[in-house]
Amino acid sequence: MSKQHTPTILVTNDDGITAPGIAALVKAMQPLGRIIVVAPDSPQSGMGHAITIAKPLRLDRVDVFKGIESYQSSGTPADCVKLVVAKVLGHKPDIVVSGINHGSNSSINVIYSGTMSAAMEAAIEGIPAAGFSLSNYDHDADMTTAGHIARVVAEKLLKEKMPKGVLLNVNIPYLSLKELKGIRICRQAGAKWAEIFDERIDPHGRKYYWLVGSWVNPDTGEDTDEWALANGYVSVVPTQFDFTAHNALTTINEWKMSV
Amino acid sequence: MSKQHTPTILVTNDDGITAPGIAALVKAMQPLGRIIVVAPDSPQSGMGHAITIAKPLRLDRVDVFKGIESYQSSGTPADCVKLVVAKVLGHKPDIVVSGINHGSNSSINVIYSGTMSAAMEAAIEGIPAAGFSLSNYDHDADMTTAGHIARVVAEKLLKEKMPKGVLLNVNIPYLSLKELKGIRICRQAGAKWAEIFDERIDPHGRKYYWLVGSWVNPDTGEDTDEWALANGYVSVVPTQFDFTAHNALTTINEWKMSV
Repeated sequence: MSKQHTPTILVTNDDGITAPGIAALVKAMQPLGRIIVVAPDSPQSGMGHAITIAKPLRLDRVDVFKGIESYQSSGTPADCVKLVVAKVLGHKPDIVVSGINHGSNSSINVIYSGTMSAAMEAAIEGIPAAGFSLSNYDHDADMTTAGHIARVVAEKLLKEKMPKGVLLNVNIPYLSLKELKGIRICRQAGAKWAEIFDERIDPHGRKYYWLVGSWVNPDTGEDTDEWALANGYVSVVPTQFDFTAHNALTTINEWKMSV
Repeated sequence: MSKQHTPTILVTNDDGITAPGIAALVKAMQPLGRIIVVAPDSPQSGMGHAITIAKPLRLDRVDVFKGIESYQSSGTPADCVKLVVAKVLGHKPDIVVSGINHGSNSSINVIYSGTMSAAMEAAIEGIPAAGFSLSNYDHDADMTTAGHIARVVAEKLLKEKMPKGVLLNVNIPYLSLKELKGIRICRQAGAKWAEIFDERIDPHGRKYYWLVGSWVNPDTGEDTDEWALANGYVSVVPTQFDFTAHNALTTINEWKMSV
């Protein structure tokens, strides 16, 4: 054992262990400590904060990243974090980083995001955590800027004290480091999806639907993640798992509901 | 058209259209307006806020509740709400009620809850919404008290003005109406699951795991949902889909992250 503490960094994602995004994240974390990787054995996008209770879970050691202990699991990103902490590490890692997601998790997307659910699971356990997402869905997207930002944030996670009950939702615009204007701490914008269902007929004459959507953002605040991304900044939203609308407690009390 | 507006009430759940809980909720809502039911075609517990993007969705009319327009869908609870609003109603319902879930969704369970994700999806669309859960997992649990409470809350949803961005997480202890002490407006308790993975060997000699857990609640505040339920009250937590940790913005800003 060296005198200096070597931090343990758990790397996970929701796009699966073979996604380029997790490879970029592993590479970015390597100089910072001992890396353990766990990821779903298939892509889990849109899984939100699902956990697996009705099916048994698998956890298999895989040799994907040279010289780095890696596992894949049949579970969701939230399961992956729970499983590896309990069954592989046997102790909490120093930090958990999730991603780099292929596609933004800004604004309302946070509630559907498997990338963020893995980070949230870590935060519930009191582990400093961040999810990273790149505003580009392309499998071959350049991850250089995103990897650099992940390292900057991870170094802070290791050094600073995370407020209780908080994790970070980090979204990175698809820009070169030179084009990037900086990093902004933001609130989640009040944007949403306007869903459209593409209606089709299957070969047996039955209707089915594909969920498609267009992005609607009426929230023009310059303190939002959407504004930051649209203006060349990385957005960092401190995110919490206490969903209580504290400001609404008084109003709902005034409804005077009684049995 | 009658002179008085007949409200449209969308009823949904995550336990599936054949669960006793949704039957109790439909029965409770019937006197209040026109009822439309949509539910997953199979139980979705633990699905959190998943949406279906990689698979086509089905939506089939079913004849489960006498005289009530009902549908089942291959999607998640969040999908169900989106689909029926877009493809059946063609307009927003007056309110959305979800449940009655077989099992509590108090405290941190809100983040894993399909019942609450359906209500949250409605709230994102600006529709007043509540999720109802009974502190009893038994298929044959008595839903009388829970049904009564659902009606009390739904009447308020129809009458009062819901604060922007807020929905209600309603948990009902397993008590008779006579035993029930009242309804309390609460914050989400800081409780969590301490997970254990039950490790087993399959017939082919490979390890697999079942996720099990025990409930840990270090948060003894009398303003929490856990306290309310343990002391004979219905808990109503005003819940929001803005996950920003507004109180942490300053602290994270002081980390001075730079590119």
